[in-house]
Amino acid sequence: MASGGHSGELPEVLVLGFPWVLPSLESQFSNRFHFLKPSNSDLPLLQFLSSFAQSARALLIPGGGIQLTSAILDCLPALKLVVTTSTGLDHLDLPELRRREIDIAYAGNLFTQDVADLAVGLLIDVLMKVSAGDRFVKQGIWPSKRKFSLGLKLSGKQIGIVGLGKIGTEVAKRLEGFGCRISYNSRTKKPLVPYSYYSNVHELAANCEALIICCGLTAETRHMIDRDVMVALGKDGVIVNVGRGAIVDETELVRRLIQGELGGAGLDVFENEPEVPEELFNLDNVVLSPHVAVLTTESMVGLTQLVVENLEAFFSNKPLVTPFEDYSS
Amino acid sequence: MASGGHSGELPEVLVLGFPWVLPSLESQFSNRFHFLKPSNSDLPLLQFLSSFAQSARALLIPGGGIQLTSAILDCLPALKLVVTTSTGLDHLDLPELRRREIDIAYAGNLFTQDVADLAVGLLIDVLMKVSAGDRFVKQGIWPSKRKFSLGLKLSGKQIGIVGLGKIGTEVAKRLEGFGCRISYNSRTKKPLVPYSYYSNVHELAANCEALIICCGLTAETRHMIDRDVMVALGKDGVIVNVGRGAIVDETELVRRLIQGELGGAGLDVFENEPEVPEELFNLDNVVLSPHVAVLTTESMVGLTQLVVENLEAFFSNKPLVTPFEDYSS
Repeated sequence: MASGGHSGELPEVLVLGFPWVLPSLESQFSNRFHFLKPSNSDLPLLQFLSSFAQSARALLIPGGGIQLTSAILDCLPALKLVVTTSTGLDHLDLPELRRREIDIAYAGNLFTQDVADLAVGLLIDVLMKVSAGDRFVKQGIWPSKRKFSLGLKLSGKQIGIVGLGKIGTEVAKRLEGFGCRISYNSRTKKPLVPYSYYSNVHELAANCEALIICCGLTAETRHMIDRDVMVALGKDGVIVNVGRGAIVDETELVRRLIQGELGGAGLDVFENEPEVPEELFNLDNVVLSPHVAVLTTESMVGLTQLVVENLEAFFSNKPLVTPFEDYSS
Repeated sequence: MASGGHSGELPEVLVLGFPWVLPSLESQFSNRFHFLKPSNSDLPLLQFLSSFAQSARALLIPGGGIQLTSAILDCLPALKLVVTTSTGLDHLDLPELRRREIDIAYAGNLFTQDVADLAVGLLIDVLMKVSAGDRFVKQGIWPSKRKFSLGLKLSGKQIGIVGLGKIGTEVAKRLEGFGCRISYNSRTKKPLVPYSYYSNVHELAANCEALIICCGLTAETRHMIDRDVMVALGKDGVIVNVGRGAIVDETELVRRLIQGELGGAGLDVFENEPEVPEELFNLDNVVLSPHVAVLTTESMVGLTQLVVENLEAFFSNKPLVTPFEDYSS
């Protein structure tokens, strides 16, 4: 066990931002770790962190809301582990962490099923107008207006998966059960996959009625779903995004949705979360979700456990349970 | 071709209520049939109908909103065909139609896929709070409140299908893709089905986390989902209904939802449509849908075609395309 500078005998874990699992970590594991929260201090963030410069070896950071900058890392020369509660790592500066020889533990595949489930839910919702119908009934309009607008059929639709990793594969598996025809785009063609492969997303869009964005955010995927892709998808096309907001050119997406140049969208992620373009608030063909794909009761229980297991492994000099491998290779 | 009393050379089709497909029938097929609408007349309904007593051989009626009573049938002694636009036939008096030797054409399996799709969409929506999340974002609450409530995982859940007919089978097929464990209740055990069978719905409920009601409404299924079944399902249990409203004891359902004795509900059908209990309007764990499972653009195109094909078959003395067979046997 590491000695804890300010914490008596418990290993110190600095906590940046507000991870969803922090309350359950604190209530269940305060006897095993000393969670240090800048938000509880009157000191400015960097000054607070610097006070743990010699002792803090582990840091916990949520998947969104705060970037792990070099300025933060400069305050923490003893840091050897970053535990993050997400699968996407775009809030971390990977090259900088590698240079400093800091390991990463992340959520791994913990959320795969939930994200895939929500992707399908958003697709059905947009096509069949579930949320809009719920609004129609709950506003008491049904008895007077009688007829709600027609939805669109999901069965038989040609669906394009953008990024056939673990999440994309689970989405495809689910949509097969609906009788959808699946195509995909990814960096390379997958050898054992029965779905049609398109080497670029523009061609995929031109051959599909809906795109489901399941990839991570990198320099290559930023604004990959741009004007040309949306034009190729066509004015009845639907975009579902459970990846990261910035994979889509959001300004262009909003413009086309408002002008009826896209059929609809189901979005769990946005470019500037939690800010969402207000122009979308009145559109019945747009379903907006507050980045909750991973937020089920069950996954939070699993995540709490996973964070603790990674911290215990680290402080016992054992291998991490869910190390980010691409980074260490 | 039948001679049309009031209609010149076109065969007459009486239209009761307001079938969704009527506008497309009138715009596309007014040159082939004379659609006679009581709603266009100043006469009381029965008097209007009686004026076609000798000539009207075919009648079109929607699946909801109007019952085909004996009083109506008494006005139409020449009637030989009822075309209805639904799969459920609880708005028809089947014994009375049989006694009068009136054939029925109905929607058959046209809607099976759409209804199954919506059932899964409602289940995901209730568990993962899609409509509630959409409301949360569209009301602009996200930036200030930040954290939306946790949903529940679908993958791995034990799901009970009430009525493993065509729709129930399609729902089960879809949910297999989500890694759900499927059980079912139906009148008889299906020989080639891999799912667990329960001979009564109470036992099914006791062994499941969600029930999806896919059966038709009959004397036997009316209020089949009663207090005892809801108690067996438990306070975290979810009910999705895409069958008919009256299969569920709605008063009991509402009471339990309000008091937190059920986990949630996704309802496309209600006991007294379009009236919906207002006590449900403020519940985030309840998703209400204005009986739209079958109402996709694609299915309405298919239904228009099917109605016309049945009418043409009838007036040409050919076999109906989608006769209601249970009735004629």
